[in-house]
Amino acid sequence: MAKDWKSKLHEIIYEADTKEGKLFDVILLILILASIGLVMLESVEEFAEKHGTFLDISEWIITILFTIEYFARIISIKKPTKYIFSFYGLVDLFSTIPKYLSLFIVGSQSLIALRALRLMRIFRVLKLARYIGESNNIMRALNASKIKIGVFIMFILILCTILGSVMYLIESGEESEFTSIPRSIYWAIVTLTTVGYGDIAPLTSLGQFIASIIMILGYGIIAVPTGIVTAELATMDKDEIHLNTQSCPNCASSGHKNNAEFCYNCGEALHPEETD
Amino acid sequence: MAKDWKSKLHEIIYEADTKEGKLFDVILLILILASIGLVMLESVEEFAEKHGTFLDISEWIITILFTIEYFARIISIKKPTKYIFSFYGLVDLFSTIPKYLSLFIVGSQSLIALRALRLMRIFRVLKLARYIGESNNIMRALNASKIKIGVFIMFILILCTILGSVMYLIESGEESEFTSIPRSIYWAIVTLTTVGYGDIAPLTSLGQFIASIIMILGYGIIAVPTGIVTAELATMDKDEIHLNTQSCPNCASSGHKNNAEFCYNCGEALHPEETD
Amino acid sequence: MAKDWKSKLHEIIYEADTKEGKLFDVILLILILASIGLVMLESVEEFAEKHGTFLDISEWIITILFTIEYFARIISIKKPTKYIFSFYGLVDLFSTIPKYLSLFIVGSQSLIALRALRLMRIFRVLKLARYIGESNNIMRALNASKIKIGVFIMFILILCTILGSVMYLIESGEESEFTSIPRSIYWAIVTLTTVGYGDIAPLTSLGQFIASIIMILGYGIIAVPTGIVTAELATMDKDEIHLNTQSCPNCASSGHKNNAEFCYNCGEALHPEETD
Amino acid sequence: MAKDWKSKLHEIIYEADTKEGKLFDVILLILILASIGLVMLESVEEFAEKHGTFLDISEWIITILFTIEYFARIISIKKPTKYIFSFYGLVDLFSTIPKYLSLFIVGSQSLIALRALRLMRIFRVLKLARYIGESNNIMRALNASKIKIGVFIMFILILCTILGSVMYLIESGEESEFTSIPRSIYWAIVTLTTVGYGDIAPLTSLGQFIASIIMILGYGIIAVPTGIVTAELATMDKDEIHLNTQSCPNCASSGHKNNAEFCYNCGEALHPEETD
Repeated sequence: MAKDWKSKLHEIIYEADTKEGKLFDVILLILILASIGLVMLESVEEFAEKHGTFLDISEWIITILFTIEYFARIISIKKPTKYIFSFYGLVDLFSTIPKYLSLFIVGSQSLIALRALRLMRIFRVLKLARYIGESNNIMRALNASKIKIGVFIMFILILCTILGSVMYLIESGEESEFTSIPRSIYWAIVTLTTVGYGDIAPLTSLGQFIASIIMILGYGIIAVPTGIVTAELATMDKDEIHLNTQSCPNCASSGHKNNAEFCYNCGEALHPEETD
Repeated sequence: MAKDWKSKLHEIIYEADTKEGKLFDVILLILILASIGLVMLESVEEFAEKHGTFLDISEWIITILFTIEYFARIISIKKPTKYIFSFYGLVDLFSTIPKYLSLFIVGSQSLIALRALRLMRIFRVLKLARYIGESNNIMRALNASKIKIGVFIMFILILCTILGSVMYLIESGEESEFTSIPRSIYWAIVTLTTVGYGDIAPLTSLGQFIASIIMILGYGIIAVPTGIVTAELATMDKDEIHLNTQSCPNCASSGHKNNAEFCYNCGEALHPEETD
Repeated sequence: MAKDWKSKLHEIIYEADTKEGKLFDVILLILILASIGLVMLESVEEFAEKHGTFLDISEWIITILFTIEYFARIISIKKPTKYIFSFYGLVDLFSTIPKYLSLFIVGSQSLIALRALRLMRIFRVLKLARYIGESNNIMRALNASKIKIGVFIMFILILCTILGSVMYLIESGEESEFTSIPRSIYWAIVTLTTVGYGDIAPLTSLGQFIASIIMILGYGIIAVPTGIVTAELATMDKDEIHLNTQSCPNCASSGHKNNAEFCYNCGEALHPEETD
Repeated sequence: MAKDWKSKLHEIIYEADTKEGKLFDVILLILILASIGLVMLESVEEFAEKHGTFLDISEWIITILFTIEYFARIISIKKPTKYIFSFYGLVDLFSTIPKYLSLFIVGSQSLIALRALRLMRIFRVLKLARYIGESNNIMRALNASKIKIGVFIMFILILCTILGSVMYLIESGEESEFTSIPRSIYWAIVTLTTVGYGDIAPLTSLGQFIASIIMILGYGIIAVPTGIVTAELATMDKDEIHLNTQSCPNCASSGHKNNAEFCYNCGEALHPEETD
């Protein structure tokens, strides 16, 4: 009987096929968004001062609801440890705890460590990842091009180190904002990625000339990651167009769709073996 | 006889095959552009003060012409309600009304609501969409990759929320411009999308280090939407060469290759009419 | 005899197969670059004041050399009018004339029209286009996607008009820099294209929220022109892989290279008709 | 015996198959990163003043270790000159020497030439390139599209020269920051590549209008290098599937399809070994 109750709870929490399951998902989604909104509002000083009590109470309500969710998830699953130490289990735990800890360490509220702890609640946003779906094409494409992209980023970093150092050497006047190599490398990255804040900008003609070269480089290099991911995605999509490589046993025409039962050319039966 | 007059009007307004139809389109195009120009000029204070009367009269002339167009469209169509509640019908209505309303509510001219109302005339620019052609490839590609792009944007937002919060924590000095989490998230979006205003920029070394990571991330991630749309467009172009839109007369399956003589599903003869 | 002399001159000037032809090209290239360098230096006030005479003399030398080139081109070609009214003919003429005109209109040197005239010499840079080669793939790809890109730009302009107007309405405080609709549209373009100068930036929270949306939009929309050109280039390159659509008369395997004389599968002679 | 010792050293230094070889690589990697970190820290004035002795000693230790590595590399290789004059040999040499030179030229420490010399140590970052792997697809794709990208960059430079000059003419008021043509060209590059520092921005309406056109241009043109590299990468991936590197034993033509049994050129049997 108790088992039956647990399995129903499991269905509601972990699945989305039933009415109750969907309702649970919607409520959780709203709670997460509300929770993130609260953390954001709390960081806006004027708002936090005016509506301090409101923020505190709302946060307590949400924290308690998330606590209930956390324990419900543990109870309803067969192997609780599997959930507890999973990515989402840890996110659920660490984004719920901070509020409770704030009870015990009240006096030292202004410490940075405490502030970081309170901010950890923002990681509740990761709970949204549950709704993304884990097996989509983009992730697969990014995963497949992981090494290529890693090489590319290393290449960018080497380039920026050298360019930054050269700029540090050139723009070393008194008014220059290229005061150190790390700062110059930061500038080189800002420029190469075409972000271009403008907080640091070259003042000498030679510096502007080299900056121009970096920009055109960055403008051209952006093609590389794009090319990598696009080529990967295009190859993947091709697999999905559902053309197989079989040729008709009668007329030998090729390029049949994967679900084809008969040759599009002569009408002969194909009996295709489905690829993947 | 009246019916004949209506059908001719319909031909002029809704079609562009006859000389009169083309002339109507050209005049409408000029009127729309002139109208948008007027709204723009009205917003430039110095100009509005000097040439107030000119702007007022011109706007009245254009408003009246658009009113005539609106009623002509209603009269000449068989099912007026279909036009009135269509996208273009509502655009036509709401971009014409404001000027008339300004007659009745003169005293409170400075209200923001009124200002918004007057600005609604700028939406006449949407009338230009009529000339774009509704069934082009780009829209189809964007439409086909709707879900993928949605997932991507959600991913970006989660990333920016976390990165913004981390930066808020790090850059919390007195002179810092990262005064709240929403503002920090705004900065993270500005940086990740490589826009880089520079109105907010990290001052600490650690902040600049993390900013660099965000930039390189953004520089790499831009590859994803590009890859999605490109792969989609490439597939479409391929489809247009090899797959026609005919469906099998026997089993109604679609997506046959252009040179197909028999249905790939049931083997029925297709006798397709070649498209293009 | 004179004819022979002309044809040799034609060979030197218009072709690059002989030693003299190549030498002529190299000298012309250096002259163009030197000429552009001079115009640039002339615009740097400090330099122009110090080295005024040097600039004047150098410019005269280059102008006279370009004049000689211009007449040599006219003399050595059979149909001079064809050259004179060609794109390069006009560029050659209009970039040589300004220096001569400066002789006649000395007193009014400071007029903007005069300044524009002098600057026209910078268009000598267009002479470099001769070396680019007119029939490259990029131009063909851009040409093939002309209409699609046109539609895309119109779409961008409509979007920026609406977004700019909305921002003008929202950011209408006293310190706001969104002082008029055209200025707001300018800002919307700066933001959507991810340029992000930062000379105008939203101050209100709502403004920053909408700005964030515009940025993410722009970050995503950049995929569209890239997708268009890439798909076009990919299709073109495919044509060049030299696979034809013929199938072997013996074993019916397809995908032969264009220059294939024999089937790669069974060794049967193909006698292919070359496509394109 | 000595020869045996040398060949073992060669194995450790030049290869990464043995335990010792891997250990050597890891230590070298750490040394390089530490060395670059030191150069960076040295450039941060406050740090250099406080921890001057620490920096000096650490740098001496690393320099001596790199010196040992350099000589070990020379000793263990059969043809030392091949290494000494190779790219990495020169990088190894020139990034080690500066510290020794600083012993001899102490008095004139502040000279720019000296500073440049010291900074050369940053080029040790190039030693990291050893770990990238020289034969990856990206480099091949960039190499294959070298000419196309060169043409593209030349096109960009011509465009920026003209646009910069036009802006110099338009934005020539007293407060304008477009003080010379080179500066205006610098601005045009900053804008076209969507970097957008904002250190120079148009003030007049006409200038902002033209700036908008440049931005949209740049936003669209970015598609070109992306398209080139993507098409190249896509083709490469395709080649890797269908074309093998075998050449015909009879006529030596290459680029056969993987499943080819006979040469497409002469009909000779191929008996290819399938690559992957």
